[in-house]
Amino acid sequence: MTLTTPHGAIEAPFFMPIATRGAVKTLSNADMERLGASIILSNTYHLYLRPGEDVLRAVGGLHRFMSWNKPILTDSGGYQVFSLAKMRKLSEEGVEFSSHIDGSRHLLTPERSIEIQQTIGSDIVMVLDECTPPDMPPPELAASVARTTRWAARSKEAFEKGRTGAINPGAQLFGIVQGGTDVALRTAHARELMAIGFDGYAIGGLSVGEPFDRACATVAALDDVLPKDKPRYFMGGAKPHEIVEYVKRGVDMFDCVLPTRNARHGQLYRFVHDDLSRPDFYEVVHITNEKWKTEGSRLTVPVEGDPISQELSRVSHAYLRHLFTIEEALGARLATLVNIKFYFELMRRLREGIERSEY
Amino acid sequence: MTLTTPHGAIEAPFFMPIATRGAVKTLSNADMERLGASIILSNTYHLYLRPGEDVLRAVGGLHRFMSWNKPILTDSGGYQVFSLAKMRKLSEEGVEFSSHIDGSRHLLTPERSIEIQQTIGSDIVMVLDECTPPDMPPPELAASVARTTRWAARSKEAFEKGRTGAINPGAQLFGIVQGGTDVALRTAHARELMAIGFDGYAIGGLSVGEPFDRACATVAALDDVLPKDKPRYFMGGAKPHEIVEYVKRGVDMFDCVLPTRNARHGQLYRFVHDDLSRPDFYEVVHITNEKWKTEGSRLTVPVEGDPISQELSRVSHAYLRHLFTIEEALGARLATLVNIKFYFELMRRLREGIERSEY
Repeated sequence: MTLTTPHGAIEAPFFMPIATRGAVKTLSNADMERLGASIILSNTYHLYLRPGEDVLRAVGGLHRFMSWNKPILTDSGGYQVFSLAKMRKLSEEGVEFSSHIDGSRHLLTPERSIEIQQTIGSDIVMVLDECTPPDMPPPELAASVARTTRWAARSKEAFEKGRTGAINPGAQLFGIVQGGTDVALRTAHARELMAIGFDGYAIGGLSVGEPFDRACATVAALDDVLPKDKPRYFMGGAKPHEIVEYVKRGVDMFDCVLPTRNARHGQLYRFVHDDLSRPDFYEVVHITNEKWKTEGSRLTVPVEGDPISQELSRVSHAYLRHLFTIEEALGARLATLVNIKFYFELMRRLREGIERSEY
Repeated sequence: MTLTTPHGAIEAPFFMPIATRGAVKTLSNADMERLGASIILSNTYHLYLRPGEDVLRAVGGLHRFMSWNKPILTDSGGYQVFSLAKMRKLSEEGVEFSSHIDGSRHLLTPERSIEIQQTIGSDIVMVLDECTPPDMPPPELAASVARTTRWAARSKEAFEKGRTGAINPGAQLFGIVQGGTDVALRTAHARELMAIGFDGYAIGGLSVGEPFDRACATVAALDDVLPKDKPRYFMGGAKPHEIVEYVKRGVDMFDCVLPTRNARHGQLYRFVHDDLSRPDFYEVVHITNEKWKTEGSRLTVPVEGDPISQELSRVSHAYLRHLFTIEEALGARLATLVNIKFYFELMRRLREGIERSEY
């Protein structure tokens, strides 16, 4: 499947590095291009607070602000409101919250979320939803999902209204399927969203503490329901071996904070087996470990025409450990390059596997 | 003048970015090469504490540890002992101090400093000296300079002894002229060091609070005394317009923490006039200032074949300000690239001026 956006086409399945506030931590857009990134994800909640809509409007949107000419997906802001903001008040209208930066009060509604994302100029706009915890009692879960459907309908209407005059009128709108691990509720919700009609469908509310096999069963059930010709996006954290299983169950798009966040804690991903169906096809190197103290082996092998591999092939494990020991920002940067490169390589191998009809 | 080292030749005058603990903060060696760096300076005191001599010995020196194949100059460690370490005890033998990291006791002598620098594998090794404050009473100053001379002689002997079997046997040893702004004492000290015989001569103990015109007079007096065929190195902070004046007075080599440290505080150097003899030929941009909030102009113009200028030409002032506002490490990195690029460009223009016999 190829996802076509106003800023270019992307071969699925693909991984979106997280540029929280308009920057993938420690990396420039030139770095992202050298890594071969085809799309980034940015967080509406964070951009709304800083730099804010006034700046984004004045400079003509996030693509121009960042000088990033490839696709951008933004979330609705809801997830951060629920995880970061204080004094939340959820109602049918939307969610009122206090900024985690200065305590100021704000109201995020489905319509406001769309409006902010259209000011950002995202290529892929996400509807506002409620991400439910795994232990929510069934009646509450059903009520939450019903509200998410009503919010999705309002989002669609606001999105179409705002399209004219928006800086990125060719943007797409994705719905988000909720329903925990209740397969009947999930598939019913998917059908409701499909009745409204979206350009793609995200699977939200997983990777929130439920057992992995139940997440897999939920994704598999949706694979039979969601339209084959629209992209499916697994929202939220997915470890490398989980991504493999979700791709097998029809998912096209992923984002995850793990490669970048773990990099900043000195944890490096690397392949140890070619067979991706083994859950142990990769390992995580803890570079601060004493064992790397004088280890001269390099982070990568240099590959002709790949400047990132060439740069990393000059960095020994001992040197990277030293950079983390002295808390030098270059360490986090080099580890981030290693991990994003790993996730991109994983997706490349999965795309090859799909071409060979392995998945 | 061309300085030839075991890791390559360098056209003077040149500027050495500071890789305190084996890394120019936020930059990789690949970045340094893209910037066109021909040499870096690293701090013996910091490397001695971390990663320590055992690691440096095990990996075969700093060049291999960093994968940096160009020249490295190291200081003696004395300056950091006097500015960072605690509970110092100065004697004829050397200086005893407590580590600023864990409080452990260490003794730095002229011989130990040479030994550590030879383990590091520096191309240019500096003698241990005492950097005197500008207000030192004349009798104390004279006594301090006399000891610095005795230390220089011990350093020379240790350096020659340690050369055989060292990982960089072609390294050079520089003496350091002290004597405050007392021109008679300075020139006498220079002659004493020249009698011992060094590969180059540094001017220490300036940029420590004395008036700039007295520093210039001191450097000018030394210009008449120091050998014309040996490099002269101005140690310590020098602002761009000060570098111009020192180059006019015969100095070949500079280091300064300002471009990198100021970058991390959001202060960017840029040229405003071509005439370098004007003290206002440059200005310092404070990027966190409100006025840059929506400023779309770019940090540089892109130059064909210069990847750093191309990368920076995609960064607007507004975006860089945003990165500093959210305390994103990428901001410090981009500003560091801007400032080192500025210092290198300044040195390039000075070299061109010398070729045109302007200085």
